[in-house]
Amino acid sequence: MTYERFFSRGADAMRESAIRKMGGVAARVPDLISFAAGYPDPTTFPWDAFREIAAELLTGRDPHALQYGATRGYRPLVEDIGEVLATHGITSTFEERLVTTGSQQGLDLVARLFIDPGDVVLVELPTYTGAISAFRNAQAEMVGVRQEADGVDLAALDETCTRLRAAGRRVKFLYVVPNFQNPTGLLIGLDKRRALLEWSERRDVLLVEDDPYGELYFPDRASRGETRPIKADDTTGRVVYLSSFSKTLAPGFRVAWVVAPAEVIAKFDLAKQAADICAGALDQRVIHQAIHRGVLKNQGERLRAHYQHKRRVMESAVDEQLATQLQSTAPRGGFFLWATLAGQLDAEQVLARALEAKVSFVIGSAFYVDGSGRDTLRLSFSQPSDAELVEGVKRLARAIEMARR
Amino acid sequence: MTYERFFSRGADAMRESAIRKMGGVAARVPDLISFAAGYPDPTTFPWDAFREIAAELLTGRDPHALQYGATRGYRPLVEDIGEVLATHGITSTFEERLVTTGSQQGLDLVARLFIDPGDVVLVELPTYTGAISAFRNAQAEMVGVRQEADGVDLAALDETCTRLRAAGRRVKFLYVVPNFQNPTGLLIGLDKRRALLEWSERRDVLLVEDDPYGELYFPDRASRGETRPIKADDTTGRVVYLSSFSKTLAPGFRVAWVVAPAEVIAKFDLAKQAADICAGALDQRVIHQAIHRGVLKNQGERLRAHYQHKRRVMESAVDEQLATQLQSTAPRGGFFLWATLAGQLDAEQVLARALEAKVSFVIGSAFYVDGSGRDTLRLSFSQPSDAELVEGVKRLARAIEMARR
Repeated sequence: MTYERFFSRGADAMRESAIRKMGGVAARVPDLISFAAGYPDPTTFPWDAFREIAAELLTGRDPHALQYGATRGYRPLVEDIGEVLATHGITSTFEERLVTTGSQQGLDLVARLFIDPGDVVLVELPTYTGAISAFRNAQAEMVGVRQEADGVDLAALDETCTRLRAAGRRVKFLYVVPNFQNPTGLLIGLDKRRALLEWSERRDVLLVEDDPYGELYFPDRASRGETRPIKADDTTGRVVYLSSFSKTLAPGFRVAWVVAPAEVIAKFDLAKQAADICAGALDQRVIHQAIHRGVLKNQGERLRAHYQHKRRVMESAVDEQLATQLQSTAPRGGFFLWATLAGQLDAEQVLARALEAKVSFVIGSAFYVDGSGRDTLRLSFSQPSDAELVEGVKRLARAIEMARR
Repeated sequence: MTYERFFSRGADAMRESAIRKMGGVAARVPDLISFAAGYPDPTTFPWDAFREIAAELLTGRDPHALQYGATRGYRPLVEDIGEVLATHGITSTFEERLVTTGSQQGLDLVARLFIDPGDVVLVELPTYTGAISAFRNAQAEMVGVRQEADGVDLAALDETCTRLRAAGRRVKFLYVVPNFQNPTGLLIGLDKRRALLEWSERRDVLLVEDDPYGELYFPDRASRGETRPIKADDTTGRVVYLSSFSKTLAPGFRVAWVVAPAEVIAKFDLAKQAADICAGALDQRVIHQAIHRGVLKNQGERLRAHYQHKRRVMESAVDEQLATQLQSTAPRGGFFLWATLAGQLDAEQVLARALEAKVSFVIGSAFYVDGSGRDTLRLSFSQPSDAELVEGVKRLARAIEMARR
């Protein structure tokens, strides 16, 4: 029996994420050093605190700790999120927040709330693959806008939007990751953030601001003030803001959130009811307790130092081993080094050699909605140990040499 | 600022689930006895086992316990699910299974994989509201087929399908809950199950079989053999089968699964990647350990006795207090008593009175896709204590009397 005749057009359009695909490959290559997955380092997870909290939650005293819960989220956690947001300059009411099952669900619900097949979503070139997948599954047409050193090129953005609308297309929103973007690590400048907000008002476009890495700036290159979300200056309700505990506490809990005007959040609630009813009851309570006990607060400084160190290790190794082979960015936060291969070498060819040499990465073209970026690659330094970072870069250098032959 | 111009047609169509709505109402009425939510009884959750397991998982020895994981699911759990299925007569390979974030996500992914706007989904009259929401959000047209004592009326089913196809409509699948259906508690007869499978082959329609309650038959009225899934006899790959640990272990973990042909599961995997990447890492490991340690196995008998007892308590109270006011089903498993009000009294009027009397239920019409069933209601006996069941039925009797005045 075959199934083509049963699948929807959305299902026909679905494609495997390049990142997830690398996960599958990695599982089959023993002793692989992975620069592919953008996973947080599990040695930074506050295991002891989680263990204590879970043991206390699972006494049965709170019967709701393993029950279905409100779609909006566990109320004390929804309140905590308000406080977390306030530290980033974002004022919000309870009715403007909703807990999602990971930030990926936030992206998926964004897609479902705003996109009809053929609607245009503007994205950065390159942009996050998880967003590409979510928007594509809703049959959006994604149009990319190139980035400058301080973020998306405003002139190109406006020209693109104007051209598309003149052609009768509906441009619903611009998707941006202003803080240490996945994959480039780029930090959008504060002036450009304000300009983007003004632009979105002028052109009547929504801004979808995705901010998983905001806490993870590197103190040697950036300050908290530079990570101020666009949402913090949104006085009219133009911005849908997503963030997550996956990078600051742990992704295994699948707890993230979205902040948007109450009318929009009410729709998120309806969409989420049908998507998975509610986020995990235990997961949400563990996160709430971790916040309540100061664990989240302690994580910030620790993680900034931790990932800054890893970045340095990888950067040194790259400088030493790969300076002539590729040009890489100097990220000011986050998990990623973004590199362009010298001589327009094809990253896919390098990847084949890299897997033979037992090192992996994600080909940069996976992050481009226009098929470009074939000579780029994303190197994640968040999870490997120092020794693995050094050894992995050596292997990558060998692989690039092989690919050039 | 208003948002109508940004919302998709899918978002426009979204409606609040009557069950979730009752949850909101319940939170505002103190001392309410709820017959509304179909929640399992948290006193049956194996708290001690969960606490021990969580403490062991959170030592940090397994760094993956709080990490992102495979979209398909935590491998040992996917293997466990194969064994669970085998006890129900279902043979499956690893490639035919996928862990979902609760069964609601399974329904949502079914909708997205198979439904284009306007496609027809056949459903029972009445049917589960969570399925209605998921299918509606994908802009399906749902067409209901009436049920007989042993399940959906085959002649009506075939007539409906033939009529729709003659009118040029695409009929993608029939959604059925054969074991102790939510809301009616109905058990589809074994002959009818076979007939449904034959029919789906003959008419080239998929069967989506949703089975959260299969383990919860009442030994005084049903046997395990009578709950044999349709999927167990599916030799051609016609059936997409969903089930969950929410009713047998605990819903707070959000762990459920779908079984379907490998080609279909590969699409589920793609859809889930973009929907939420993966189910919770800790949640899946707790469930795996609970299975591994025999906890799930022990739950079956315990839960059957527990809910059979609750059913008896509610049935006795209804016999005593409400015999002249309504006619109720005699469920052979599950969580629900399904009732039809005498004299075609409107359940919505009764609900208004019931909330005044501090008892709630779900109006039956919420489960009908054709707007009928206004004189029906669903009474859940799964969560209230014995005393609450008795007192709640008394309050309901008063409410019905008031509504008749």
